[in-house]
Amino acid sequence: MPKTAPLHLHLESARKRNPLFHLTEERWAAAAKRHRALARRLTVTIGWDGDILDTALRTADLMINSNPPQVRLRERAPRLKWIQTTGAGIDPLMPLDWLPADITLTNNSGAHGAKAGDSCAMALLMLNAQLPRMLGHQREHAWQPLYTTPIAGKTAVIIGFGDLGLAAGRAAKKLGLKVIAVTRSGKAGRPADQAYPVSRLDQVLPKADFVVVTTPLTSQTRGLLDRVRLEKLKPGAGIVNIGRAPIIDYTALRSLLEKGALSGAVLDVFEPEPPPPDSPLWNTPGLVVMPHISCDDPRYVDSLFDFWFENFGRYVGGRRLRNIVDRGLGY
Amino acid sequence: MPKTAPLHLHLESARKRNPLFHLTEERWAAAAKRHRALARRLTVTIGWDGDILDTALRTADLMINSNPPQVRLRERAPRLKWIQTTGAGIDPLMPLDWLPADITLTNNSGAHGAKAGDSCAMALLMLNAQLPRMLGHQREHAWQPLYTTPIAGKTAVIIGFGDLGLAAGRAAKKLGLKVIAVTRSGKAGRPADQAYPVSRLDQVLPKADFVVVTTPLTSQTRGLLDRVRLEKLKPGAGIVNIGRAPIIDYTALRSLLEKGALSGAVLDVFEPEPPPPDSPLWNTPGLVVMPHISCDDPRYVDSLFDFWFENFGRYVGGRRLRNIVDRGLGY
Repeated sequence: MPKTAPLHLHLESARKRNPLFHLTEERWAAAAKRHRALARRLTVTIGWDGDILDTALRTADLMINSNPPQVRLRERAPRLKWIQTTGAGIDPLMPLDWLPADITLTNNSGAHGAKAGDSCAMALLMLNAQLPRMLGHQREHAWQPLYTTPIAGKTAVIIGFGDLGLAAGRAAKKLGLKVIAVTRSGKAGRPADQAYPVSRLDQVLPKADFVVVTTPLTSQTRGLLDRVRLEKLKPGAGIVNIGRAPIIDYTALRSLLEKGALSGAVLDVFEPEPPPPDSPLWNTPGLVVMPHISCDDPRYVDSLFDFWFENFGRYVGGRRLRNIVDRGLGY
Repeated sequence: MPKTAPLHLHLESARKRNPLFHLTEERWAAAAKRHRALARRLTVTIGWDGDILDTALRTADLMINSNPPQVRLRERAPRLKWIQTTGAGIDPLMPLDWLPADITLTNNSGAHGAKAGDSCAMALLMLNAQLPRMLGHQREHAWQPLYTTPIAGKTAVIIGFGDLGLAAGRAAKKLGLKVIAVTRSGKAGRPADQAYPVSRLDQVLPKADFVVVTTPLTSQTRGLLDRVRLEKLKPGAGIVNIGRAPIIDYTALRSLLEKGALSGAVLDVFEPEPPPPDSPLWNTPGLVVMPHISCDDPRYVDSLFDFWFENFGRYVGGRRLRNIVDRGLGY
């Protein structure tokens, strides 16, 4: 590679986040070994809770950060060109009016597929088996067999068909389900059997044995599954949410679960998160609380660094980066 | 078909069993419609809790019964040639010294595959995700994320590779697991990647990320997974039992779960069944109590009748019946 002045990459983490997501010196060193040639083109600083942030920003060209600084960013970081977020959903950063037009923002969409597929398969099988209800019986030491037919041939409606939706769709197909994707455009490739635009959601919901929510949170998806829409579901349908909590009206969902109108709900996302200890969600019948782990592999940061290095190769080669966030769509 | 005197088939059910397993007039009528020509060769009686049993036995040639009469059977049923049981496991009927040598006993092995596959996939994914532990956290309203790697590439040791073991193996392969079968002979076909004889179980157990018990209960399998063997498992391994309870030492299993030595156990079978309300199994940490539903489809009797008619076709054609129980092996 040509000899050029090294670029300054700043890695910033919050200690209060789960250590799984910490951009540590050890993890960076291991990744730098895996991508030796590219790593040589970098000077790297590692900050925690903003301890060296302002100093680092003065010279940083590149940054990896779950929660980039939004106040007077251009002024504080005159050379910054590219921010990589550690997560896939950037809803906490919206609207992007704080982001100078010449700074590229990329997200970590794509890191979640394998684990998300496993989690969706598990949730679909649990809902089909009425396991959430049986877990309630177990708590009461009550033996109440609930017999259910195999899952093959039933229908999963998957809302959103990006990285997570595709993973959910593949998992559902492997189980023999029919997959209906609901997308903005009304189009979806394999493994969807059918696709509908979100404007026709009301007609699609009554077909679902299972609904899997995988969309990012945007102004279009907030409140998408409100009470009226949830009431369009078949009796005994089941719900999975690995997207974001505000997409579903959880109060309405709880009342349907309490009435026994649904087979259950497996929820991985909450608002606020975690739910407070006195939240009724913890012991709503048929509700399984997953502590936001459904799409995360413990090798998360290693994969993030590998993805970043691959993208950095594109950057130094003058090619278009992958995972650039669309400022209008918010993902 | 040749015109011959009709054969007398007696169907016998116990009302205390789950209605799912009742051999009702409606279900028989529906099955007889599906197999009209063969049904014409039968005279059928339907008994409940022995109400007409002795009268029926006097002329019965054939019987379908979950719990055949074992006392003085030949004397009471001089013409009886063939008994079909409604279940797959015949351990409650062993030893078969009550069964006259000229009466054939067939079981319902094979009816359980599709549902058993779903149940095993669900249990494996739950154990891999550490869901049993997270369910315990949910009960305590505690948010404690446990991150786990995807299931693909891990190893399932499947004990027994008959109908249920095959279903478990296929489900595991679909999830990308390596499948090791443990069988009497040490041989197993697809989808097993490897097979070992039960005599080498001690060497196989330390390889397992998951152990799935699917064997019938026989004098060879009773107590197979005792304390010493359970302690050979890797830390964090998970256990599924869809076979019979006495194959595993549940007391030893409980103490391993209490110590956190295993990721969890999904148990579908108990002894006694159901476990009494004060059994410690109900709230052992990491233990999921499934109320013996993992292999049963609510269309159970319909499938049983279809299987029986197919076998009856063989019977009248003078061909060898399927699912004949080996008197020595007990399955």
